[in-house]
Amino acid sequence: MTKTVNVAIMGIGTVGGGTYEILTENREFMLRTQGIDFRVKKVLDKDLERIRSFGIPESAAASSVDEIAADKDISIVVETMGGVEPAKTFIEKVLLSGKSVVTANKELVSKHWPALEAAAKKGGAGLYFEASCVGGVPIIRALQEGLQANHINSIVGIINGTTNYILTKMTEEGMGYHDALKEAQQLGYAEFNPTADVEGFDAAYKLSILASLAFHTCVPYQTIYREGITKISKADIKTGLELGYRIKLLAIGKRRGDVIEARVHPTFVPASHPLAGVGGSFNAVYVNGDFVDDLMFYGRGAGARPTGSAIVSDVVYAAKAAAPLYSDFVNDGKVADGIEITGDFSSKYYLAVSVKDVPGVLAAVAGVFAKHNVGIESVSQRSGGSGAVIVFLTHTALESDVKASVTDIEQLDDTNKVESLIRVLA
Amino acid sequence: MTKTVNVAIMGIGTVGGGTYEILTENREFMLRTQGIDFRVKKVLDKDLERIRSFGIPESAAASSVDEIAADKDISIVVETMGGVEPAKTFIEKVLLSGKSVVTANKELVSKHWPALEAAAKKGGAGLYFEASCVGGVPIIRALQEGLQANHINSIVGIINGTTNYILTKMTEEGMGYHDALKEAQQLGYAEFNPTADVEGFDAAYKLSILASLAFHTCVPYQTIYREGITKISKADIKTGLELGYRIKLLAIGKRRGDVIEARVHPTFVPASHPLAGVGGSFNAVYVNGDFVDDLMFYGRGAGARPTGSAIVSDVVYAAKAAAPLYSDFVNDGKVADGIEITGDFSSKYYLAVSVKDVPGVLAAVAGVFAKHNVGIESVSQRSGGSGAVIVFLTHTALESDVKASVTDIEQLDDTNKVESLIRVLA
Repeated sequence: MTKTVNVAIMGIGTVGGGTYEILTENREFMLRTQGIDFRVKKVLDKDLERIRSFGIPESAAASSVDEIAADKDISIVVETMGGVEPAKTFIEKVLLSGKSVVTANKELVSKHWPALEAAAKKGGAGLYFEASCVGGVPIIRALQEGLQANHINSIVGIINGTTNYILTKMTEEGMGYHDALKEAQQLGYAEFNPTADVEGFDAAYKLSILASLAFHTCVPYQTIYREGITKISKADIKTGLELGYRIKLLAIGKRRGDVIEARVHPTFVPASHPLAGVGGSFNAVYVNGDFVDDLMFYGRGAGARPTGSAIVSDVVYAAKAAAPLYSDFVNDGKVADGIEITGDFSSKYYLAVSVKDVPGVLAAVAGVFAKHNVGIESVSQRSGGSGAVIVFLTHTALESDVKASVTDIEQLDDTNKVESLIRVLA
Repeated sequence: MTKTVNVAIMGIGTVGGGTYEILTENREFMLRTQGIDFRVKKVLDKDLERIRSFGIPESAAASSVDEIAADKDISIVVETMGGVEPAKTFIEKVLLSGKSVVTANKELVSKHWPALEAAAKKGGAGLYFEASCVGGVPIIRALQEGLQANHINSIVGIINGTTNYILTKMTEEGMGYHDALKEAQQLGYAEFNPTADVEGFDAAYKLSILASLAFHTCVPYQTIYREGITKISKADIKTGLELGYRIKLLAIGKRRGDVIEARVHPTFVPASHPLAGVGGSFNAVYVNGDFVDDLMFYGRGAGARPTGSAIVSDVVYAAKAAAPLYSDFVNDGKVADGIEITGDFSSKYYLAVSVKDVPGVLAAVAGVFAKHNVGIESVSQRSGGSGAVIVFLTHTALESDVKASVTDIEQLDDTNKVESLIRVLA
């Protein structure tokens, strides 16, 4: 039982090109193993040269999104343009025309999921976005179709390859942040303007999607606490290693009853934790469910071919699906009734405080922590500039108590500054 | 849109009980998140006491499989009896009556997949077996619905929790095989008769299923090379650690063009490989595809709750599936035309040879390797009993060449025995 499915691709950059390559290189293979003959009928890109560079015949170049929306032979449209507009307008048009859309666009899905889902429902079409999170790793399929029996308690991920590459270089080769960033840019792992990656926006978009699916409620990306990696110093990494930690930019979603935490920040991960060994541009997501216990999904979080693999898996899925898969909980884009998303999570903390090297300073700082109910697990001192740096590891404490401690500590007479505040994965 | 789905469970041991617990404990949750009200209408088990022990009302106890097959309200049947018979007869009966079957039974699926699939097709029902491999880890869903775009090149797994527990104890605590086995038995990780686990049968059943799905051809379990862990010595583990390896019972499937390797054996895994860190009773599967590159799926490979999680994910899947999912390639239970399953794979090898401590013995042994085209990467010597033990690490070589070398080495005048032959993951 073989059927032909015509596909259009909007945006033929790196990922769109990778998708085209799979659909053509593995066409026979998918015909044999899936029973579907996929044909790329139309490609939309303002740059004709790019279309040619992938060996796509010019006759396949569409002049506009309307041409794709009007083409009754096309049933699935892949969006690999990136960014919010015009991707949003284009996707809505083709969804309303009844064609299912497969997208890799995490920014768009995290910001406009309700509008896209509404257009999909109106058009009777499907909206698929496995490729928006963690590249080729089928984590969305796992959440939607592999773990349905579970209340997900937590999802903790290394879900940005750029920052993981930079932090790995800093950890393994002792490079500073700026040198590691420059190398990542030269290798194409970081953009010329690296803000979206290094400030944690990209990870927050993805966490918004993954946490929404895991917890069955919208987790708007604006509610996610976000902190990037630009302030991580060589000294932090070195001290962390001595204490048995490796630094990672983690995206963390946790649910306890009706309270959800969602946060992206640099984190010290114990060397024995499976996430600690996830190096370079690899990504991984660590999930805990009430029945399944701990799981980890590991793989390439970016790149034309792994992301193309996820896109084409959605294309096959869309081609076989009897009915579109909807995430009804996103309908209004709000947090579900009765659910609170808290910014006041609890964690263990690493703090490095630069102080004048005088008697009594440790007692004064320790006194501030005590006042705010922050218990100290260990303390050590290293020389730093004209004075000293005291490094504290706390027991589990509330973020608000630790932040209040920092404010008070910086106002002490004999302290200079809290140089570093890094959360520690318990 | 809510619907009620009645389920029957055949076999209410550990895993069947875990399944019952999920379906009852998380019933409201699944009604809310999946739109399906699952009810366990009938339970079949010859031991009424076990049925009672899970708080299942006696009115739900079925008197026979025929009662379940005849019950028109029941649409999905879970089989958690284990073993080949009567599970096979029971499953075929309910499939032929048009009910979909969800099973955790790797031995049955690997030995009788074609017959089960034929019954499913005849009854217009689905056959689902996510729980048969790697407990709660949704690896089968990933192969079937997450990686369809890829030619899978290899699948390398730690897929037996009992042996991984034993080998981890031997590695981390220096225990001998028999002591570690005894502890595993006391903790319930190993059976009183541990043969199926420690001799690699369980892993071979699972590899047969996973490799068949990965390579789109039947890989009958009889074609799988199988070697257990009973001969692994403390000395092997110690020497391996010194060389930077951790020992794991690996299940390996590889495809190069039309040739497939499928094998289960103890393997030295480089400490830097993600599989090396998979300890205790955890399982993991490392997959490489032509577009997605490397992936790893990690989690609990056994246990009532994780396995129950996989079963219930299949139950939800079956309840929502518009059409059953068939694996057409298993139809005749034979390897696909044009595909060869080879026993003569290539690998790197660790060999420990006990010798008399006399001049010329190293030259003699090295000469044998050279004659059989086995290149040596490194050699070292340790004292052992009355003579010495020479440890060789080879370059990649053919299994047949290494086995021929072993035969010849043992016939040399000044050698006693090849004490150990352990393959090394390259």
